[in-house]
Formats: sequence, structure tokens, C-alpha cells
Amino acid sequence: MHSPLLTDLYQLTMAYGYWQANLHERDAVFQLVFRQHPFGGNYAISCGLASVIEVIEHFSFQETDLAYLASLKTPQNQPLFPRQFLDYLKTLKITCDIDAMPEGTVVFANEPLLRVQGPLLQAQLLESILLNLINFQTLIATKAARIVAIAKEDEVLEFGLRRAQGPDGALSASRAAFIGGCTATSNVLAGKLYDIPVRGTHSHSWVSAFDNELAAFEHFAQSYPGNCVLLVDTYDTLAGVKNAMIVGHQLRARGYDLQGVRLDSGDLDTLSKAVRHMLDDQGFQQTKIVVSNSLDETTMRTLKAAHAPIDIWGVGTNLVTAYDSPALDGVYKLSAIKNESGAWDYKLKLSEQTIKVSTPGIYQVRRFFAGDVMVGDILYDKQFGIADEPDAVDFAHAAQSFKLPVHSDMQDLLIPIYRAGRCVFARESIHDMRARAKVQRQKFSATYADQPYHLGIELKLSEIKQQLISAFMQAK
Amino acid sequence: MHSPLLTDLYQLTMAYGYWQANLHERDAVFQLVFRQHPFGGNYAISCGLASVIEVIEHFSFQETDLAYLASLKTPQNQPLFPRQFLDYLKTLKITCDIDAMPEGTVVFANEPLLRVQGPLLQAQLLESILLNLINFQTLIATKAARIVAIAKEDEVLEFGLRRAQGPDGALSASRAAFIGGCTATSNVLAGKLYDIPVRGTHSHSWVSAFDNELAAFEHFAQSYPGNCVLLVDTYDTLAGVKNAMIVGHQLRARGYDLQGVRLDSGDLDTLSKAVRHMLDDQGFQQTKIVVSNSLDETTMRTLKAAHAPIDIWGVGTNLVTAYDSPALDGVYKLSAIKNESGAWDYKLKLSEQTIKVSTPGIYQVRRFFAGDVMVGDILYDKQFGIADEPDAVDFAHAAQSFKLPVHSDMQDLLIPIYRAGRCVFARESIHDMRARAKVQRQKFSATYADQPYHLGIELKLSEIKQQLISAFMQAK
Repeated sequence: MHSPLLTDLYQLTMAYGYWQANLHERDAVFQLVFRQHPFGGNYAISCGLASVIEVIEHFSFQETDLAYLASLKTPQNQPLFPRQFLDYLKTLKITCDIDAMPEGTVVFANEPLLRVQGPLLQAQLLESILLNLINFQTLIATKAARIVAIAKEDEVLEFGLRRAQGPDGALSASRAAFIGGCTATSNVLAGKLYDIPVRGTHSHSWVSAFDNELAAFEHFAQSYPGNCVLLVDTYDTLAGVKNAMIVGHQLRARGYDLQGVRLDSGDLDTLSKAVRHMLDDQGFQQTKIVVSNSLDETTMRTLKAAHAPIDIWGVGTNLVTAYDSPALDGVYKLSAIKNESGAWDYKLKLSEQTIKVSTPGIYQVRRFFAGDVMVGDILYDKQFGIADEPDAVDFAHAAQSFKLPVHSDMQDLLIPIYRAGRCVFARESIHDMRARAKVQRQKFSATYADQPYHLGIELKLSEIKQQLISAFMQAK
Repeated sequence: MHSPLLTDLYQLTMAYGYWQANLHERDAVFQLVFRQHPFGGNYAISCGLASVIEVIEHFSFQETDLAYLASLKTPQNQPLFPRQFLDYLKTLKITCDIDAMPEGTVVFANEPLLRVQGPLLQAQLLESILLNLINFQTLIATKAARIVAIAKEDEVLEFGLRRAQGPDGALSASRAAFIGGCTATSNVLAGKLYDIPVRGTHSHSWVSAFDNELAAFEHFAQSYPGNCVLLVDTYDTLAGVKNAMIVGHQLRARGYDLQGVRLDSGDLDTLSKAVRHMLDDQGFQQTKIVVSNSLDETTMRTLKAAHAPIDIWGVGTNLVTAYDSPALDGVYKLSAIKNESGAWDYKLKLSEQTIKVSTPGIYQVRRFFAGDVMVGDILYDKQFGIADEPDAVDFAHAAQSFKLPVHSDMQDLLIPIYRAGRCVFARESIHDMRARAKVQRQKFSATYADQPYHLGIELKLSEIKQQLISAFMQAK
């Protein structure tokens, strides 16, 4: 998984081309941005940096990798890569500077989550894996944050392993979902690898394996008297609750409480209300109702609006695959390259769609606060800087300029991760990342509820972008 | 990735429960089926078995796994798993029988892709990872088969790494997409690991890195004279084609042909027609047109219907995430368990939705052919067998019985993979799996175009299912 071969072939054919054109060590800047907020929302939660660091720490072409590359042929049956180039790759290490937003940061479309500055060939070779890691984990952290927001004070558990997109699609999703705000995962390996709480009790198979449901529940309570959450819908939900309460009384006699019942089918609004009533009636006010049946944002909003007495939400497929929008559209674009005289040439990619025109330069995002509230983000160029009261223009409409509201504080969001290939970023605990996401989401929501959030490009940088666009248009 | 901890916690809590109830070695049968054909279609392509075999071969709890499990606590701060149980896991090996459809098999809803028979605890512990692997790879192989069918004779390349759901979401998708019919992948590691052809030339960054597009194209042709596919839309597509043709003439003078131009934005119908015209006009009839801009089934169908002169389709996000339906709904249900007297008790899970009621028994799928054409599949029980001219009923409507059309040949689809924990399945090459998918799709399409395909349960097995359902209803 950490192989530098986990890339698109064209990164390697371009690498060879740069090497042959003697451009491979030319200093270049690439920025990783996404263009549209996922799920029709207004923000995303950055995630995936720890995986990026792991990949860069392991970046090294092994003998078997080089042997494989040496085996590739052109249509004329010539080697795709000459031996000297493979010898060059053999000793290649990443010596770039990398700046990135720490995980759990609230981030917006058109803002760089990560910037790479270094030799063109190296920065190019990192493209595919950086996009893969950051696109997916950011997508899932964002999805989790949205779901957790709907659940309000209730716990949300991530149950997605069986429907996730492969083993790592499950593992990274468990990690990202926790950073986005989930309480725990069912995925035991994710628990071990990432220090995430794990949860789970039993499935329908457990109930089927015994002669009847009551026997199954009694046996489960034998094994887990203090941790007994019973799945009650294998045959009939309300009959299942009655059996669960029989076991609940047995547990009580032994000094334990029935922790919960889980509903996994049917009309969860009607059922949860009926079940709550049955439980309360027999003195099981402490017993929680857990639900888990293809839950998504819409179902959860509907259940919340109906005041369904649900305490814990187990969300699987819709969370870990981001079912309603299963890919983030992040891109990684060359934004500056040094020319032969050592000065920076700014670069962009044109497109008929304004939103797809990339921003040139070497940029940073500055976030402005009024007390505890976020009021706006401005993209600015590191070479040209930014005023304390910056003039800025809208991302999509260069003609719409704005001034930020009154602000008391500011912070640059991209922080140093690598300097000359050395990791300078002190690793954070996943709990810190999760806390950051929670706090930042609150600071953003506080603004967004009442007024527009200001997002744009600092005026000078915007002018440079417009000049580059005009120059291309005239050249046509 | 091969850790037995890559499971849901409840599999382990149930395992402990079975062990404590002395049910852990009771012989049980689980079957893996999906309930709905993905993408609104009428078939799926089975995939993921090789990964299942890899997991089972590596199935072993390591010291660090057991240490992690030992660290888990109940809410009362007691160990979740007692030491004796962890000692039991330490020596646990899979000793089950497993039967499965070989990869590339055309499979239908309600048919088992895989059956596990063996000690209850072991079969239970395999659930989550089997579902994870088979659900995802079957989903993507199916998506690829659909896309390849739309592309007809054209090549389809899989370009999904950057938007895939994590590293493995990309790697397994490359593998499954190839089995489903793609020609090649851009993912170099997938090429190395799975013996899939790899493809790729250059991106927009390559063009931006040079002073102008023509210089970029000339440099690329220097490096890859015989393999030159130029991306022409960094600034302006038609101007890009002109630059590509300048380079094409240079290549011709050196004895090479311009292999292709790639379009990655804009109206691909209009552009491909204009570009084909420009190329033909200057004698580049052999130069192919490659397209790659968020292609999906709908776009491709539209372009095909408009006779857009596209030769090669690069499909990324929509293929590798199965964007329009990113999870297969496969489940793994206990269908039989031996009772104390050693006879099989058949088991099912009830549901208010008929389609979600699982089928009891130890079953197999028999496929019937009339010459080269598939005419129907019948699920039957191994204990009760199946007649040569079986009576069968519809999966969802037990009252609708049918007879198969005239058939000349038949084949059982589940074949032995493991016997008593030993792999008895001769590994196949990925090229054989791909060929199987292609042939079977043709045999199925031949039927389906003109008449209904017959899918159902053999009458005796259906009666057993109905009896079990009735018994539960009476007990209520």
C-alpha cells in the first residue's frame, strides 16, 4: 500500500519526460483543492494527513517495483522506461516542503488543503496518492460531521465494514468518521490501529443459532451481563422486546441493567415509540434504544423531527461510502514553477467552466474571527502577502469584491508538515483532531446561521489570475 | 489488512458467547447472497474470491491482536474477553468447507455467491470480511461490465485511483474492473500485483510546466515517440489539436505515428467530431481519440447514440466508486445448524419485506442451457436434490410456479474452494476470469434480449421455506 507504484502510470511517464528534459529538479508548487462542497453542503472537514505522512515516510522504489517498471514496453516493444531513469528512481527520496491544514479543520471549496513545493518530478509523483487519501478521508469526515449534527446529543456509531469499498475503504472510513464526530466504530482493526472506541453486541445469526429467541437472549446475557444490548427484530420486534424484558428482569436480579435494545428493520418511528413505551412501563427507563437500518441523513432528520425516542444511531453504508455523493472532486494543480532565471512563473489551467480555472501562485488561507466566531477566509499569495483589512473578490465572480466584517483575530490554516523532506509536524492524537472538527464546526455554524460566510481571493492574487487568463485569451 | 481483527466487534462478542454456550464447534451453514441487482440492471458479475482466499490463508490471531482484545473493557471495567477465550483464539485456524462461484460468473439476486459450512464460531468470524470483499468487487466488476457493454468494440480504460475510496478501494477496483471487461488501468501497482495492462501518458500539469503547449508536446514526443497520446485541452482544445498535429508531422518524419489525442473537457460529442475532422483532413486517420471527463453510463450512451467518433474511453470516478449505487447489498445469513442429535435444523431470518426473508437450507445453484444460451437458474437444496425437469417457484412470489424452457445442458455454479480448511481450488489467471465474464454475459444477453430469464427456487426447498415461515407465524 505504501509503494510509490500506487500511482497513475502517467505520473511515471511524465517523470521520465521531466527527467529527460532536465526539468525534474525545477522547483514547482502544486496545490490540492476541491471545487464543490460535498452533499450540497457548505463546508468540509479536512482529513487524511496522517496517511499522507505515512506514504511519504515510506516513499522508496523497491527492487521488485523497478523490475516491474523495467518489464513495461511501448507498442513497438521497446522498454517504456530506460535503465538510467530507473536507476535514478532507485535512490529517489522526497525532499519537498509540504504545508497542510491539520486534520479536523473546517475547509471550503477552492482552498488548498495541502501545498507541495519542491522538485517538479517529486511533486508530480505524489499527485495520485495524495488525491486518493485526502479526497476519500475528507469526504467521509464531512459526511460524519453532517450525520452527527443531525443526531444532536445522541451517539452515532459507525457500522460500515461489510458494505465499505474494500478493507481500506472500511478502515480509513472508520478513522475519518471518528474525526468527523462519531463516537465509536464496529471495526475492531480500526480500533486497534487508530485508538477508536469499538462497539458491538450480536446479530440475527446469534438469535437464529438457538432454538428460540428467549434462549438466545438468555445466553447472551450470560456472556455479557453488564453490556447487554439485544437485537429484537429477528422474528418480530415487539415480541422480541418482551423477551428482552424477561432477560432484563433476570439481569436486574443479578445486579445488572439491560443496556439497550436494537431495532434493525421496520418503521423506526412507530417502533421506537412503542418500544420506549413498553420499556418504560416495566421500569426499564435506563434501557437505551439503538437503531440501525440503512440510516441516512434524510431518515435521521425525519426521525428526529418526529421525536422518535432513539438514543443511539448505528450508521453503516451511507456513512462509509458517502452513498449520496461517493467521491470528493479534489484536484492537484501546478500553480507555480521556477523559470531558468530562478524567478517564479505562475501557472493555471484554463477551462470553459469558471470554477474549474485553477488559481496560480503560492498561496495560503487566512481565516478571520470575531471573538469565537469565524467570519471569513481569504486565499492570498505568500509572495504578495495580505493586508490586515484585505480587499477580496468572490471565488467564482472576479467582479464581486468584498470587505470582511469586523474581526478581532486571524489564523493561517496551512501549517508546515515537511521541510526539505523532513517531517516537522508533531503528530497529533485522533482525539485532538476530533475535538478540532467539533469546535471549528461550532465556530462556523455560529456565523453561517445568521449571515453569509465570506470566502474569496485577496485582490492582488485575483488580479494576477485575471492577467494570466487575459494573456491566454489574447494569444488564442 | 489480513488481520482477523478486520471484523465487526459483534462477531467476536458472539464468538465468545458461542464458546461459552459450547456451541462454537456446532456445524453450521452460512450463505452469502445479495438481494437486488445493482444499477437497476438484471445481473451481476461475481468477484472477490481471490481476496477471500488470501484472507483465509492468513487467518491467524497475532500476539498484538490478542493484546488489543485483552485491553477491551465492559462498561463495568471488566475484561470484555476472558483470558481462556483469548487462548482459544490464539490457536484458531479455519477448518471450514467453502464453496463459491468462480470470479467472472454471471450471478443473480438471491443466489449464493459463496457458502461456508463448518464450526459456528469460525463461520461467524468470517462474515464481515467476506461481505466486505465480495460486495465491493462484485459491485465494480458489474459496473465495468455494463460500461464495457455500452462502449461496444471500443477500449475502456480504468482511471479511478485519485477519486477511489482509499488505496485498496482503488486497487480492488482496478482488479474487478479488469475482470468486468476493462482493457487496462492507470494504476501501476494494480498492474504489478494483478497482471493487468497499464496505460497513461500525461496530464495538464505537464503542459503547464513548459513555456507553451507546443513545447510541452514536442518534449513529450521526444520521450515517447512511439507511444504519443497528447492531452489537448489544457488551454483550448482545437488549438491544442493543431499543436498536436504539428508534433504528429514531426513524428511522421521520424517514422512514428501520433497515437492519439485526449479530450478531457467540454462537449465531447461536438469536439470529438470536430477533432476527427481536423485529424482526417491532415492525414491522421490512424490517430485515435481518447476521452476522459467524468464519464458515466449516461454520458457514454448519449455519445454512442450521437455517433461521436471516440475510440477509447477513460472512465474513473463513476466506475471505481460505482457512483450511482456505491454499495452492493450482500448479506451473509445462517441457513442451517446441526442440532444436538446431529441432524440439520434449517434456519431463516424473517422480515416484513418478503425479499429480505432469507432462504433456509444448504443450497446450490443449477444453471440450465439450451445450446450456447442460458435459460434459467434454480436454487436447490443439496439434501433434497433437484430433478432434471425441476418444478420451481419465483423468488419473491412463492405462489408463482414455473417450468424451465427446453434445455440441453446444466451446470452447478458453486464449486469447492476449501475442504476442511484446505484450499482445493486451482488458482485461475485474471485473464481467465475476464474471459468467463465476457462469455457468460453473452450467453445471458442472448436469452434476455428476447424472453424472460427464469430464476427461482426448486419446489421442495420453497415448501420448506414456507413451512418455516408458517411455523413462526403460528408461534407468534
